[in-house]
Amino acid sequence: MAEGEISTAAVLVIGDEILSGRTKDRNIGYIADRLTDAGIDLKEVRIVSDVRADIVDALNALRARYTYVFTTGGIGPTHDDITADSVAAAFDVPIDVDERAVKTMLERYEKADLTEARLRMARIPQGAELIANPVSKAPGFHIGNVFVMAGVPAIMQAMMDDVVPHLKGGQTMHLQSIEAGMGEGAVAQPLSALQDAFPDVSIGSYPYQRDGKFHTSLVLRSRDTVRLDEAARQLHTILADIRNGKPD
Amino acid sequence: MAEGEISTAAVLVIGDEILSGRTKDRNIGYIADRLTDAGIDLKEVRIVSDVRADIVDALNALRARYTYVFTTGGIGPTHDDITADSVAAAFDVPIDVDERAVKTMLERYEKADLTEARLRMARIPQGAELIANPVSKAPGFHIGNVFVMAGVPAIMQAMMDDVVPHLKGGQTMHLQSIEAGMGEGAVAQPLSALQDAFPDVSIGSYPYQRDGKFHTSLVLRSRDTVRLDEAARQLHTILADIRNGKPD
Repeated sequence: MAEGEISTAAVLVIGDEILSGRTKDRNIGYIADRLTDAGIDLKEVRIVSDVRADIVDALNALRARYTYVFTTGGIGPTHDDITADSVAAAFDVPIDVDERAVKTMLERYEKADLTEARLRMARIPQGAELIANPVSKAPGFHIGNVFVMAGVPAIMQAMMDDVVPHLKGGQTMHLQSIEAGMGEGAVAQPLSALQDAFPDVSIGSYPYQRDGKFHTSLVLRSRDTVRLDEAARQLHTILADIRNGKPD
Repeated sequence: MAEGEISTAAVLVIGDEILSGRTKDRNIGYIADRLTDAGIDLKEVRIVSDVRADIVDALNALRARYTYVFTTGGIGPTHDDITADSVAAAFDVPIDVDERAVKTMLERYEKADLTEARLRMARIPQGAELIANPVSKAPGFHIGNVFVMAGVPAIMQAMMDDVVPHLKGGQTMHLQSIEAGMGEGAVAQPLSALQDAFPDVSIGSYPYQRDGKFHTSLVLRSRDTVRLDEAARQLHTILADIRNGKPD
């Protein structure tokens, strides 16, 4: 697994409504699923408020560190929609109403209805490419390694459909999920030894409660299916030994 | 609204399972609600993977900047649970099995069942205070301005119950939510003017879709109820004027 082959990503969620608890984010999990399917490792997520300096700082930190950055939120017509201007500031490029964006918006709006406020949605940083919005026509955009999308889940999802085919995915990450049939404390020690033996397989242990009992999902992830199968086989043996009361 | 009176907060979610999409986070929204109720401004959220350097970097950035930092996840018994050790590293203090933590865990486990793996859950950085875990007994802890909690939602929520009464809340943020009855493009311009007139009231505009139509929730937030009521009164007038076709 050469480090160079793997695409990484970060998500930057922009919006006071998430931080105040008023709106519960549904975009992070969706983007995480799509990236995992595409063989891209989501490495970090940040949620920041509608403050320009905070957006610029977070964006510059993330775009320097990861292959791709996906932002959601803050590209509507109101005064608190400052994402496009913040992205332009981060890239230090001019921003203005973009004729391509106006053209797509005219598929939905009459020319007379393209008020100054609605034209805010056509403000695109210089050098950016548009991301299609089949739902409400106001486009997202991509500049450098940053993809700027809407916050409304249906629109964001449609934009991801436009974006994902253009991403350079790594080798797909394969996954095997195994129910331990016991609390994670019981399996922790041999699991740690298994992880040491398989550095190329990421082994996660996820406790959860159901019907008042503690359960554990063990998840093995690797880009190498042969090693993944071997680790899973050994894990099944470990779990069977614990159930049969064999010492470690 | 003196800046000095206001407590701020950040949340640091630790866990590969969120970033891979396997688990959908349910903790951020809960903590956001609890903090808002307590009059504390949640300013930033980060989600990082189970990598010590990433946890330490994020924690040090956040704890320097905000009044409080709340972490979730990574305090179980398995090899991928590295939050406690990472927090100790961030604060540069020793960490070892804590007798207070062992004592609370003995309320659930027989002494013989406190294996080396389970005792990982009793590792607490020097100088930290415990956070009670009535659900499964392995405690969280708080050190400096950082509160370290479990990732399992039921346990995290119980830990927040223990923590919140000890926080220094600001003056409660009051909120009025008004349905615009129109898309946000229609109200954007007068809304921006209203925001300019009420710098002490935070005005958010949140578009959403229902039954194929676009709607807009307008949310006014302020610590000053008189100003909040006045802004809301003016907003109702603005919306009525738009519906009646009056010019801006």
